[in-house]
Amino acid sequence: MSRLRTNPEAKQKIYESELMIKPDMSNIAFKNTHPTFLEVGMGKGSFIINHALQYHDHNFYGLEKYETVILKAINKTKNSPEVKNNLKFIAADANKLLEIFKPNSLDGIYLNFSDPWPKKRHAKKRLTNPAFLELYYQLLKDKGQLIFKTDNLGFFEYSLEAIKEFKKFTLVYYTYDLYQDINLEVNKKNIPTEYEIKFHNLGTKINKLILTKTNS
Amino acid sequence: MSRLRTNPEAKQKIYESELMIKPDMSNIAFKNTHPTFLEVGMGKGSFIINHALQYHDHNFYGLEKYETVILKAINKTKNSPEVKNNLKFIAADANKLLEIFKPNSLDGIYLNFSDPWPKKRHAKKRLTNPAFLELYYQLLKDKGQLIFKTDNLGFFEYSLEAIKEFKKFTLVYYTYDLYQDINLEVNKKNIPTEYEIKFHNLGTKINKLILTKTNS
Repeated sequence: MSRLRTNPEAKQKIYESELMIKPDMSNIAFKNTHPTFLEVGMGKGSFIINHALQYHDHNFYGLEKYETVILKAINKTKNSPEVKNNLKFIAADANKLLEIFKPNSLDGIYLNFSDPWPKKRHAKKRLTNPAFLELYYQLLKDKGQLIFKTDNLGFFEYSLEAIKEFKKFTLVYYTYDLYQDINLEVNKKNIPTEYEIKFHNLGTKINKLILTKTNS
Repeated sequence: MSRLRTNPEAKQKIYESELMIKPDMSNIAFKNTHPTFLEVGMGKGSFIINHALQYHDHNFYGLEKYETVILKAINKTKNSPEVKNNLKFIAADANKLLEIFKPNSLDGIYLNFSDPWPKKRHAKKRLTNPAFLELYYQLLKDKGQLIFKTDNLGFFEYSLEAIKEFKKFTLVYYTYDLYQDINLEVNKKNIPTEYEIKFHNLGTKINKLILTKTNS
């Protein structure tokens, strides 16, 4: 068959037809009204599992694309069966988020040490590019926060720039050296990832920023 | 993060955990008990739409990976709103079939002019390779049929060989020249695809085979 030029709107448009079967994740909701947080790209899950263990009155979702990696996270919870009350994992690509979560449904989104995709032609994959910022903006409730950490300075500066141009978020905090600021109120609840501990111990500076969605 | 070696079992294993959210396609069923057929890789849909229009007492699913292509199929149904009674489209990769359909749920599966993937390193993508045959075997009801057409002789011979080695299916019919056999009972209901008409008119021979699942 001759190949069609990809229609970027097709993904959305096809689901306007009643002929389409749409994967349903309506079973996603927690059966409580606790504040709900999502980590995009949870990797082997240490960060989100630790949160779930520490904050029983919060709900947590870990999104990860690679099943092999998710299996590591699942295995980590073997001795903590209680996490089933406030933790769920999802195997999906970040660009499917709006097919999974309802708009205005999340209190916070975490991005921890996401792949910096330093090559310019890979900018589309960076989890802080304008398209992803728009996604997070739609998913967050009013006053919901995006909390982003990276050890990659180039990625951090790209992200600050993207946020500035995106305009809709309020940048409420940023630092180029989290561990210099670790006692600030905003960082008191910082739960480091495995990667973060390792690189901090090697002397790498950790960048962090927090955005707030403020409906105007 | 250091990359993990891909664990081919992970995809299945993670869903054994109650922590996992699984996309649910339980809304897939037709609300009747009519015989149900699936075309894997429906392309722009002429074949499956024509079937739906012709056989009102049969249900049809069209599976296609590319949204842009599905949109073409949807547009083709604009003047035939009645197909909503017996036709559904699914945007998914063929290797997700078992996540979408229940085992022993289909009366027939069509493969029409699937990509032959002639390079040896692409054998995994051929829709008649042993892994896909196993998938179809699981999805078909007892006495269910797989009906495969291709104009690519190399792909047809590869498929015959794969079927022979797979053993579980019964090869009930095959031809290297469908239009020589077009009046055989088995071919009387042949609905050509757009591609098939075009290539048949150009003198290309069309290969066809039919397999039956017979539980022993």
